[in-house]
Amino acid sequence: MDLQNIHHPSQIKGLSTEQLEHLSEDIRSFLIENLSITGGHLGPNLGVVELTLVLHQMFDSPKDKFLWDVGHQTYVHKMLTGRMDQFNTLRQYQGLCGFPKRNESEHDIWETGHSSTSLSAAMGMAIARDVKEEDHHVVPIIGDGALTGGMALEALNHIGHEQKNMIVILNDNEMSIAPNVGAMHNMLARLRSGQRYNWVKDELEFLLKKIPSVGGRIANTAERIKDSMKYLVVPGMFFEELGFTYYGPVDGHNFDDLFKSIDYAKKTDGPIIIHVLTTKGKGYHPAENDTVGTWHGVGPYKIESGESMKKGSSGKAWSKVISDTLIDLAKHDRRIVAVTPAMTVGSKLEDFRKAYPDRLFDVGIAEQHATTVSGGLATQGMKPFLSIYSTFLQRGFDQVVHDVCRQNLNVIFGIDRAGLVGADGETHQGVFDISFLRDLPNMKIMMPKDAEEGQNMVYTAVNYDDGPMAVRYPRGNASDEPVLGHYDLIPMGQWDVLKEGDDLVVLTFGTMIPRALEAAEALEQDGVSVRVVNARFIKPLDHDMMHQIAKEKLPILTIEEHALQGGFGSAILEFFETEKLPFPYISRMGIPDRFIEHGGVNDLLEEVGLTVEAITQEIKDIVPTQKKRA
Amino acid sequence: MDLQNIHHPSQIKGLSTEQLEHLSEDIRSFLIENLSITGGHLGPNLGVVELTLVLHQMFDSPKDKFLWDVGHQTYVHKMLTGRMDQFNTLRQYQGLCGFPKRNESEHDIWETGHSSTSLSAAMGMAIARDVKEEDHHVVPIIGDGALTGGMALEALNHIGHEQKNMIVILNDNEMSIAPNVGAMHNMLARLRSGQRYNWVKDELEFLLKKIPSVGGRIANTAERIKDSMKYLVVPGMFFEELGFTYYGPVDGHNFDDLFKSIDYAKKTDGPIIIHVLTTKGKGYHPAENDTVGTWHGVGPYKIESGESMKKGSSGKAWSKVISDTLIDLAKHDRRIVAVTPAMTVGSKLEDFRKAYPDRLFDVGIAEQHATTVSGGLATQGMKPFLSIYSTFLQRGFDQVVHDVCRQNLNVIFGIDRAGLVGADGETHQGVFDISFLRDLPNMKIMMPKDAEEGQNMVYTAVNYDDGPMAVRYPRGNASDEPVLGHYDLIPMGQWDVLKEGDDLVVLTFGTMIPRALEAAEALEQDGVSVRVVNARFIKPLDHDMMHQIAKEKLPILTIEEHALQGGFGSAILEFFETEKLPFPYISRMGIPDRFIEHGGVNDLLEEVGLTVEAITQEIKDIVPTQKKRA
Ligand SMILES: [Mg+2]
Ligand SMILES: [Mg+2]
Repeated sequence: MDLQNIHHPSQIKGLSTEQLEHLSEDIRSFLIENLSITGGHLGPNLGVVELTLVLHQMFDSPKDKFLWDVGHQTYVHKMLTGRMDQFNTLRQYQGLCGFPKRNESEHDIWETGHSSTSLSAAMGMAIARDVKEEDHHVVPIIGDGALTGGMALEALNHIGHEQKNMIVILNDNEMSIAPNVGAMHNMLARLRSGQRYNWVKDELEFLLKKIPSVGGRIANTAERIKDSMKYLVVPGMFFEELGFTYYGPVDGHNFDDLFKSIDYAKKTDGPIIIHVLTTKGKGYHPAENDTVGTWHGVGPYKIESGESMKKGSSGKAWSKVISDTLIDLAKHDRRIVAVTPAMTVGSKLEDFRKAYPDRLFDVGIAEQHATTVSGGLATQGMKPFLSIYSTFLQRGFDQVVHDVCRQNLNVIFGIDRAGLVGADGETHQGVFDISFLRDLPNMKIMMPKDAEEGQNMVYTAVNYDDGPMAVRYPRGNASDEPVLGHYDLIPMGQWDVLKEGDDLVVLTFGTMIPRALEAAEALEQDGVSVRVVNARFIKPLDHDMMHQIAKEKLPILTIEEHALQGGFGSAILEFFETEKLPFPYISRMGIPDRFIEHGGVNDLLEEVGLTVEAITQEIKDIVPTQKKRA
Repeated sequence: MDLQNIHHPSQIKGLSTEQLEHLSEDIRSFLIENLSITGGHLGPNLGVVELTLVLHQMFDSPKDKFLWDVGHQTYVHKMLTGRMDQFNTLRQYQGLCGFPKRNESEHDIWETGHSSTSLSAAMGMAIARDVKEEDHHVVPIIGDGALTGGMALEALNHIGHEQKNMIVILNDNEMSIAPNVGAMHNMLARLRSGQRYNWVKDELEFLLKKIPSVGGRIANTAERIKDSMKYLVVPGMFFEELGFTYYGPVDGHNFDDLFKSIDYAKKTDGPIIIHVLTTKGKGYHPAENDTVGTWHGVGPYKIESGESMKKGSSGKAWSKVISDTLIDLAKHDRRIVAVTPAMTVGSKLEDFRKAYPDRLFDVGIAEQHATTVSGGLATQGMKPFLSIYSTFLQRGFDQVVHDVCRQNLNVIFGIDRAGLVGADGETHQGVFDISFLRDLPNMKIMMPKDAEEGQNMVYTAVNYDDGPMAVRYPRGNASDEPVLGHYDLIPMGQWDVLKEGDDLVVLTFGTMIPRALEAAEALEQDGVSVRVVNARFIKPLDHDMMHQIAKEKLPILTIEEHALQGGFGSAILEFFETEKLPFPYISRMGIPDRFIEHGGVNDLLEEVGLTVEAITQEIKDIVPTQKKRA
């Protein structure tokens, strides 16, 4: 069977183990080659080649429902469901999505990106199946990392109770993005080794076989113990306690073992967990030997050496700017503790860990817990820095409201990946945090224009003692090199005029500042005088400056790489109402009321009209017309 | 020791078991008497009398840290920490809070209200203790219901891994608010009965004692099995697997057992769970025999009979209006399935369960899971109705964004307790949902003015096929009686003019409509002509009507029982900007940028200025002045 000729998973059905093995090799070669050009989630996909083939051979998608947790491991699934020819556009603008996408294929029945959702969605599908009296399998495929997310555990509790038929594939590669942490990880490790359980089981059986010769009460007892043995020595007690049948561990690269396990699962009543052991990066040396997480998601690379082809970009990653500053400040301030939900690598906290191993807490994929741990720390006079991606902070929202803001605790939110994130797309865009944080009493929100200001914001937040503060920073690199050792406090709510002008005021922050300045400079040539304000505090606003602007009756343009509804621009509108001031001409630029798909950030900014050209045009449209509308 | 003379927990220290037993009786009498007048969480507090006394005798609060999960069981704790004399003001405006409150006492170190937060906060405190090299105990007290919340499970995973010293009191009364569900509940039930484990343990020990006489390999094996036994037959394997020592079950009404268990816990290294069995309502017959949850939280009652003293209020509870409608619609529509996170009683879904036992899913305290289960159901053509309190929907926020809105799934959100909730206070006010939902693409939000409209909204949502829809409804009763059997579709985004007028337009919805109408009628006498619009769609707005209003250049007053930042009024401001229309005079009334404490809803509305008088005054201020400001 030629990989290029597979257009539908039914073509996998008849294949022998040997044919599947050949196909696996072809799939791996294809992945290694293609991703060396496009980049993508290489490690996770190399790990599930055999598993995906077996699933498509043993089940009938889309009648049977595959739910891929997190979803970055669906490349093989996409290859087997008619999307081979789109892999050259992987994760590119208007190209193949790096995650399951319902509008791409009928075989993608559930979209993911964030982790730990598959079990809950699977439960919804199982309920629907039973209410509709249909007959099919529901098969969530979830990783060991995702299993520790609170919602996955909530789902286990419910599914185990309801005893719906469901085949859960636990794809255990001992890693999430980076190596896993947590007690469940240790529990899975014990299961993987199997030692304790197997030894005890063998020995007890041997012992019990000898017993009948002893006779009397002992023989009787032995019988009763045999009955109870399945409760005693069964591996996977954790899952059995939750109402699941546990089967495993199974070698996830051995076709026969996989077939056998799924065969067993199909015959089992109620929910079952098949514990499949896979090796992340399997079949590609550099990825297979990765113990840090470097090969989880990659840019283009040289196949031979695994060397990255990334062009030497100037500047330092924002995550690194922030974490280096934190390391520096933590030297003289033992109150500083860093908390991360499984993002030590992504948020570049490895050096912090090295410097202060007892003050960095990677809590696993557990944003709710991460947020409230930080709250608990703050009650004791500590200065917790919660490093969290904007999109994942959504998971800790109630904890931000109920635990942190309501108690006005000094938690510092380092909101990483704020704004459009690019190739990860729709599920990962950080474009809602201003809306969902700005309405919360006690919250302060900042965003820096450059590394220096970002450092000062971290410094300001660490030295602020009246409640939560958020510093947002984007994906990618800062334009300037951070300098450690000297920091300035930024007065609460104080903005900064970057360019003077008296025809119009642009209020903007963060990533949009260079674009606004460029537009303003260009307009200078046309005789339009634009003031550009670095509105680095999104909450609170700079009331003095706003009153000054109101007095001048200048038209205002707000620009933000964030959803327009409830965003920064809305705060400006609210200001005029709250202060009972006449409205000047106000125009808001930002992200419209729809989800933004994957693609290069610049392509996406163009799509939503946040370019220098669009800004220039908007200002040109406003300046001569404003008097008519005021 | 006279209960009235206790002002500090140190006074408990020397007391004998007999003295404590007398004190328990006094505490119970006090609770039963006081709550018969003020109302409050009687059941939970009667259950923890002995436990609270023991905790205060065995630990030193506030040096040792008590974290009361959910927090409605802290009355006894409050009585022992100098707040006896405030119980006549319990849960009343500016009175004693029904939950822990940091500004009430140094012994309240962590505020709760939502469940499952205590373990995470305790972990933060344990980390702080160790970084600061301090020495004290951290003691979260968590119920069996709260333990199934995802964030509690995330916390167990982290705490078990880090092995910090922590004494977790699992207060197991086999109930959360109502009887518990879920696999963990079943697991706890097995622990409670203790049968399997104890029997196996006893028998195995008997067996092993006999073995040495057999000699040879068997004896050898027996020794090794003895070593492993603690892994095999220890009860609480679930917790042990997560890295905790498990101790229990312990009779939570027996002082000596409680003393012994805490003594043991203090000597244990690493985290330990003490499984304490308590009886909700202990010592008060009507509450003790409650199997439904009626006595969880109560209004005033007659002590002798337990009969409720609630005045016969007119109208039907909003929750009931909505659930009755759902029952009616579900008769002919098998797509309708109801999902609730442990709120079958609160959301009045018992009758739905009776009518359709296979279509009501109480998933336990698990809002994340509840939201995504609903998403999964919707992918299969079902019409899930997720009945959830506004304040608890915060827990499912990411699931609303990432799973439901992003995939544009037909999930119906029945947002119960929207607006100010009264006596439960700060932690439970439902005043942020518009802000955090309005910015999400695909979301539609409605709020009805009366039962009839609420019914039509449910009907409209059930028959809507292009994505998620939310119907918000308040705590308390509808003014009109619902009529079943006939429903009208409400056209998408269509508002309703309730009163004509041409001096000013009031845009409002839900609970604020009667107040707006009353103000408008009164102003009619003064010659001020106020139009009152039922803006029953909060998203989308009624664009046609808005354009009409804009054309008339009338001043606008928006009124909402919701936070002002990012709320409905902001949507109106945004409309004028988005449509590039000149701003008329706009004024917004709503809840200011701070958390609102407990008290009667009318008191709270007065505090925030949402009264008929305030509305009248605001309109009077606007009408003559508006021309100056436009
Ligand atoms: Mg993994
Ligand atoms: Mg309970």
